[in-house]
Amino acid sequence: MIIIGERINGMFRDIAKAIREKDPTAVQEWARKQEAMGSGYLDINVGPAVSDRVSAMRWLCEVAQEASKLPLCLDSTDYDAIEAGLEVCKQPAMINSVPAVQEKMDRVFQMASKYNAEVIGLAMNEEGIPKDAESRVALAMELVANCDAHGIPISNLYIDPLVLPCNVGQDHGPEVMETLRQIKLLSDPPPKTVVGLSNISQGTKDRDLINRIFAVMAMANGLDAAIADGCDEELIAAVATARIILNMDIYCDSYVDVFKNQNL
Amino acid sequence: MIIIGERINGMFRDIAKAIREKDPTAVQEWARKQEAMGSGYLDINVGPAVSDRVSAMRWLCEVAQEASKLPLCLDSTDYDAIEAGLEVCKQPAMINSVPAVQEKMDRVFQMASKYNAEVIGLAMNEEGIPKDAESRVALAMELVANCDAHGIPISNLYIDPLVLPCNVGQDHGPEVMETLRQIKLLSDPPPKTVVGLSNISQGTKDRDLINRIFAVMAMANGLDAAIADGCDEELIAAVATARIILNMDIYCDSYVDVFKNQNL
Repeated sequence: MIIIGERINGMFRDIAKAIREKDPTAVQEWARKQEAMGSGYLDINVGPAVSDRVSAMRWLCEVAQEASKLPLCLDSTDYDAIEAGLEVCKQPAMINSVPAVQEKMDRVFQMASKYNAEVIGLAMNEEGIPKDAESRVALAMELVANCDAHGIPISNLYIDPLVLPCNVGQDHGPEVMETLRQIKLLSDPPPKTVVGLSNISQGTKDRDLINRIFAVMAMANGLDAAIADGCDEELIAAVATARIILNMDIYCDSYVDVFKNQNL
Repeated sequence: MIIIGERINGMFRDIAKAIREKDPTAVQEWARKQEAMGSGYLDINVGPAVSDRVSAMRWLCEVAQEASKLPLCLDSTDYDAIEAGLEVCKQPAMINSVPAVQEKMDRVFQMASKYNAEVIGLAMNEEGIPKDAESRVALAMELVANCDAHGIPISNLYIDPLVLPCNVGQDHGPEVMETLRQIKLLSDPPPKTVVGLSNISQGTKDRDLINRIFAVMAMANGLDAAIADGCDEELIAAVATARIILNMDIYCDSYVDVFKNQNL
């Protein structure tokens, strides 16, 4: 599982301030820190309070890339902001995200094709998030078909089955696990899979514990990536361990450090 | 996942001494402690150094049952010792274990039928432990067929896919995960599944971390039980969390305590 470090997000006070004052310090500190702890991408989200999302996204992408060589994951529901980010990305980025809604898929897959970007596709549509695995997989199939129709390799598509907090949507848990497994049967090569990890623990008491246990259980069902706290030491140790158990990295006593230093 | 508490084992010095001196103190302390921390069974193993395994097993079973109301898991390759334990068990026990070897299956399933015991069946035979999932599942099928031939409900059979240390048998990890999944397709109702948890981490540096991450990954693939350290607080928290994520227990903020107190 690749960690998409979630910390450069205007929802956090230091990043909101950085955007407001055009001071790159906090952004670049988090970029460097997440890279040094093993994140594979940097999520970039201007947050809810920004008036000019297009210029904020462009600026965040520019300053983050000055501090880190990681690819960016452009996180916004404003596709103009995403396109502004794609224009300044020095290497292929990830678009986060598109639901299985036709006009949105048209716009996003077109951008992805133009900028050679990866895409996170959400297993939801106008009617919301389905409860059972079958309906989630049907929406994943729509995303696969649209991705393919734009000539984008399916391995550039990350399906997010959509995780609900375990204290309110507990019955979604097994359905998400089943969805992750079934997505790997949709095509050959199959799409990749991703989750927004912290969703599982919203409103619960021991959030970090629930996050990391969910992450490795999902990995056992084929999860490829998660937008997550790339500075959570125990999450990183759990993910590195799961990679050993799944025979994805070779065991050595210092495998957690090896995982962290993979980008160096 | 049910924890079969592994601590009453003559391989530990205090238990070996207890058996030698016929002093039940240590045995009963561990029986009570494991029960209080949420174990569902007590594994009973006389250890390697005992000359009279039959009388040692009988004595361990008797004194453990004076301290705890948990069912016992009789752990020996000496079937006479197991039968001696079964004779004194006050409630249905678990036999640990039998490989897919005909004369051994004949003896063990006959005992299981007579004493209404559950059975752990190992996915191995005279040729050893197979590497791939398919061969493990074929051996599981032999165990299922023999169990059924003795009129024992298949839900009383626990298949152990056999876990190897991740530092020497790393390629077995994904095969074990796949085996756990496929075993659930063998019959309806399917057999249960069990592992000897500590095997995965033998010879590694951070054993507890690897044990608990493997446990919850295996749970995500249907693992029902594990012979494990029933006093490992972090393992217990991980297992309790996995049960929440799989919607097996209802979420509340104190779910770890609820898991521990399930036997009270």
